[in-house]
Amino acid sequence: MALYVQKFGGSSVANIERIQQVADKVRDFHRDGHQVVVVLSAMSGETNRLLDLARQVSSNPSPREQDMLASTGEQVTIALLAIALEERGVPAVSMTGWQVPVRTDSSFGKARVEELNDSHIRHYLNAGKVVVVAGFQGVDMENNVTTLGRGGSDTTAVALAAVLKADECQIYTDVDGVYTTDPRVVAEARRLDSITVEEMLEMASQGSKILQIRSVEFAGKYNVPLRVLHSFQDGPGTLITMEQDTSMEQPIISGIAFNRDEAKLTIRGVADTPGVAFRILGAISDANIEVDVIVQNVAEEDNTTDLTFTVGRQDYEKALQILQQTGSDLGARQVGGTTSIAKVSIIGVGMRSHAGVASRMFAALARENINIQMISTSEIKVSVVIDEKYTELAVRALHDEFGLDTPVVTRA
Amino acid sequence: MALYVQKFGGSSVANIERIQQVADKVRDFHRDGHQVVVVLSAMSGETNRLLDLARQVSSNPSPREQDMLASTGEQVTIALLAIALEERGVPAVSMTGWQVPVRTDSSFGKARVEELNDSHIRHYLNAGKVVVVAGFQGVDMENNVTTLGRGGSDTTAVALAAVLKADECQIYTDVDGVYTTDPRVVAEARRLDSITVEEMLEMASQGSKILQIRSVEFAGKYNVPLRVLHSFQDGPGTLITMEQDTSMEQPIISGIAFNRDEAKLTIRGVADTPGVAFRILGAISDANIEVDVIVQNVAEEDNTTDLTFTVGRQDYEKALQILQQTGSDLGARQVGGTTSIAKVSIIGVGMRSHAGVASRMFAALARENINIQMISTSEIKVSVVIDEKYTELAVRALHDEFGLDTPVVTRA
Repeated sequence: MALYVQKFGGSSVANIERIQQVADKVRDFHRDGHQVVVVLSAMSGETNRLLDLARQVSSNPSPREQDMLASTGEQVTIALLAIALEERGVPAVSMTGWQVPVRTDSSFGKARVEELNDSHIRHYLNAGKVVVVAGFQGVDMENNVTTLGRGGSDTTAVALAAVLKADECQIYTDVDGVYTTDPRVVAEARRLDSITVEEMLEMASQGSKILQIRSVEFAGKYNVPLRVLHSFQDGPGTLITMEQDTSMEQPIISGIAFNRDEAKLTIRGVADTPGVAFRILGAISDANIEVDVIVQNVAEEDNTTDLTFTVGRQDYEKALQILQQTGSDLGARQVGGTTSIAKVSIIGVGMRSHAGVASRMFAALARENINIQMISTSEIKVSVVIDEKYTELAVRALHDEFGLDTPVVTRA
Repeated sequence: MALYVQKFGGSSVANIERIQQVADKVRDFHRDGHQVVVVLSAMSGETNRLLDLARQVSSNPSPREQDMLASTGEQVTIALLAIALEERGVPAVSMTGWQVPVRTDSSFGKARVEELNDSHIRHYLNAGKVVVVAGFQGVDMENNVTTLGRGGSDTTAVALAAVLKADECQIYTDVDGVYTTDPRVVAEARRLDSITVEEMLEMASQGSKILQIRSVEFAGKYNVPLRVLHSFQDGPGTLITMEQDTSMEQPIISGIAFNRDEAKLTIRGVADTPGVAFRILGAISDANIEVDVIVQNVAEEDNTTDLTFTVGRQDYEKALQILQQTGSDLGARQVGGTTSIAKVSIIGVGMRSHAGVASRMFAALARENINIQMISTSEIKVSVVIDEKYTELAVRALHDEFGLDTPVVTRA
């Protein structure tokens, strides 16, 4: 008998028919003798519908009240699933974030889980019930309702799995696992049986949006076995494991991620004095704009330097304004940028033990005449920024170069 | 500076535009220096929509889960009104039933308020905020969400007004006050400036569905001045007062109520032994069917008796089945019933000091050739059961007989 935490996202509970299907699946696990905690999102579109109502009333709705409003979405789905389970003869009980309680800080709209009490859930599990928990929501020390931010249901599921020491945290989605890259771009993309937490983190942050990054971090930190599965198709999915046994033969590259949601900004010809990068990027981050890739050129003969960085595309206009101000303050020669870029990354823990992975990547791109604008590397990842129009070409060339369409037999 | 509890029902918050209008009204009170606690229902239709979802999943949904589901309706409206108030520069905070907390028993779907803590609300009021409370909902000792049943938002408002010792509990509705009878039936029906709690109780239980009975009982018990007003029209409404000063000249009859939601059942020729009424009606109430008017005939010569009673029309089939079983057990001569009845009542505290009110009523009905099937009286009410088709005719005749179209000048 195992203890599973099973999370179903908004599209898996989008309507009554799907809730019935989820109930069937959960019933099967319960019938097989397993203990099950289900974590649900709101019906897809519901959170947006609710926040739209708020925006009809105010251009700047209070974050506390938005959380109060949005948290009703999951409360509806958990009640409906509990009812559907009981209709199938499965004893079930629904729990909101405050009932668990999932204690968070007071950062409305993006609260962090501080403490999670499992005693009520255990009580219900021991009574033979399936416990259906509202994802995405919690309660702060003053009993205000909070939400964990978009994708927060994954975080709820992983945190519950960690506290309950669940045998597996199963994330049910609309894909049947993690792929070597987006199958819509590369037809030969292959489902991975397993992927390490580190690789998954890089894949997720690079734009493969299956799982919320924070939930994967959580899973790694608390050693929670995480599995991505399809809600309505049978299959083994992809297991997200802890760091893989390095004695085992590994593929060099596990996957290729790409991201067309960034924009690039450049400031040229500023005096290369200590702290200049901080002055430039500090102003950006003061405006709550996240910076991703940063490249600073070595000082030129006139003792000036160039700095290029990327930000989310939605922040481009604001970042450019700030950079123009900074540029004028610093007497920069030129300030500019573009939104038509893409970031393409190869990811794999195997990189650590294999030299020359980056040059193989650059060579493969050169053969396709794709110019590399920026490069950023980490221990298990190489990212390049290129012209957006070459995205698909680059992803396909790299998928081929690293043999990702061929299953690695020795892989677990 | 006064403290008002203002309750707005589902049709007053049915859409964003109306919520904006409610926010304007509340803002005006706040601007005039008053402290305001607002109690809201769900948008009209929303509770039914949610419960319909539950019924799509199960023919017999768990009461606990139905309450979990339904209670989201008010959570949406309180958040939206708080946002609308803040948009108008009025500091506001929303509170669910469990946040107040409104502590109830565990009778899901029809929970009773056991304790109401006002310390959090007072804290917010003292900070200058308008507090927007979810009506209709509470929380039991195990932190399960409960609902007070249909119309429970009135109960929430009156209970809050009692605990907070509010200067007035204002119930905003889609009518501008309490009328002598339904103006759709009698064109001359007149708005009452005031009505006693007792009269209002009889009016409400007789089918004038402006206020939930329990909230009026509450108001009487805790001496809460209750006023019924129109949500979107200005006007004094109707004040529901404590027992009126008897030295004041009063109208004999304050209003006429009627109810077409009942059905009549009769059992004839059962042995008139002690406890026979209990055997007949006990079986009915064991099935959770509420019995209203009861008439038992004096024993006839053969020492048998007849019993006639009314139940809610929706319970008629079930009650008839039970009565047929009881009739067969008791060897009754006949069991029967009909749904085509109406109950018409005249109500007024003035009846106490005026003899002959009932006979005036019977005479007025006789002049219209309306046959009376059952009679039931209380200190301040006379009800008759008649054939449903005479309802309007009876109400008009009685309205005229007791001069209800003429305002009583000496009335407060």
